[in-house]
Amino acid sequence: MPRERLERQIRFILEIDKLKEVLRRTYLTGSLRRENTAEHSWHVAVMALVLAEYADQPVDPARVVKMLLVHDIVEVDAGDTYVYDEAAVATRAEREERAAARLFGLLPSDQAAELAGLWREFDARRSADARFAAALDRIMPVLHNVATGGRSWREHGITADRVVARNRTIADGSAALWEYARRLIERAVADGVLAAAPEAPS
Amino acid sequence: MPRERLERQIRFILEIDKLKEVLRRTYLTGSLRRENTAEHSWHVAVMALVLAEYADQPVDPARVVKMLLVHDIVEVDAGDTYVYDEAAVATRAEREERAAARLFGLLPSDQAAELAGLWREFDARRSADARFAAALDRIMPVLHNVATGGRSWREHGITADRVVARNRTIADGSAALWEYARRLIERAVADGVLAAAPEAPS
Repeated sequence: MPRERLERQIRFILEIDKLKEVLRRTYLTGSLRRENTAEHSWHVAVMALVLAEYADQPVDPARVVKMLLVHDIVEVDAGDTYVYDEAAVATRAEREERAAARLFGLLPSDQAAELAGLWREFDARRSADARFAAALDRIMPVLHNVATGGRSWREHGITADRVVARNRTIADGSAALWEYARRLIERAVADGVLAAAPEAPS
Repeated sequence: MPRERLERQIRFILEIDKLKEVLRRTYLTGSLRRENTAEHSWHVAVMALVLAEYADQPVDPARVVKMLLVHDIVEVDAGDTYVYDEAAVATRAEREERAAARLFGLLPSDQAAELAGLWREFDARRSADARFAAALDRIMPVLHNVATGGRSWREHGITADRVVARNRTIADGSAALWEYARRLIERAVADGVLAAAPEAPS
């Protein structure tokens, strides 16, 4: 049934249009509106094209791009989980598994298996491709925060110790990019854009 | 100077954040806000992953994806050119050439040449990869229009003859996708979502 196959594929494509309505905590550098997950996915995919040379282990850039294009599709159902929101992070895996089953399940089964597999691989960070893709996904909000005067960090009371703890896994994909991010974070603290550490209770 | 190289790459990545603020004429299927070019680029890139099997000539899906990720970056400077706006289409090539020189020129020269080359290849439609990428880029607004009750077509007084004339080049990349689009257009006319042809002056 080639016709039915195409209908399923188009249905998936139309369904993921909703990813453009899922808002993240980061702000655009221009208008300062919140970023949505679809445009973020484009941005990190282009980043993979441009920064592939900084991966510490050999990666297949085309697979990294593919992984980044689909890594957040589950947010159509599961929403964006803010990385510093520990309660939401705790329920994330289960919400995203359900979402993956429904969304990728719209596709013909061979493609459903392939894209769900890429999503799972990204999530598990067990391959070089996934670790590098994850490094790009992490460094992007650091760049956005620095470019917007730490807007999202300040809005959520995030301090440098948490930014470092959260982002040091960038080093699992790329020592050079973690070095770059670390210096950005230090400069953000020096510039007063990021608070150094939580104030001790007095 | 590896450090200077990375600085240039990051500068490019931050600069293209502005693509998220370039609005197209299409509307999202959910909230009916206008779509921006960055999220559109993500959407057609995912489409390439899912629909690659419908290309009539052999294509390299990874190159098609890459091409679609960068095909509209020039709009950061040149803006979106509405395909049915003939005056804007006439000045488009020159505006986009200037934009390509500035934007890709932010990158190290090897990468500037590569991405500008992909953009140029897309634009010229002379390779199988480019023709298939262009077919996807064309069919997407048809899907969006049909899914939103012809909103953008009606807003701009676009009639079926123009939609067919504009989109029949989909067949240069994929006969199956053009057949699908043609049937969607026919159904849109039958459903009153798309006007058949301009009214004759009385």
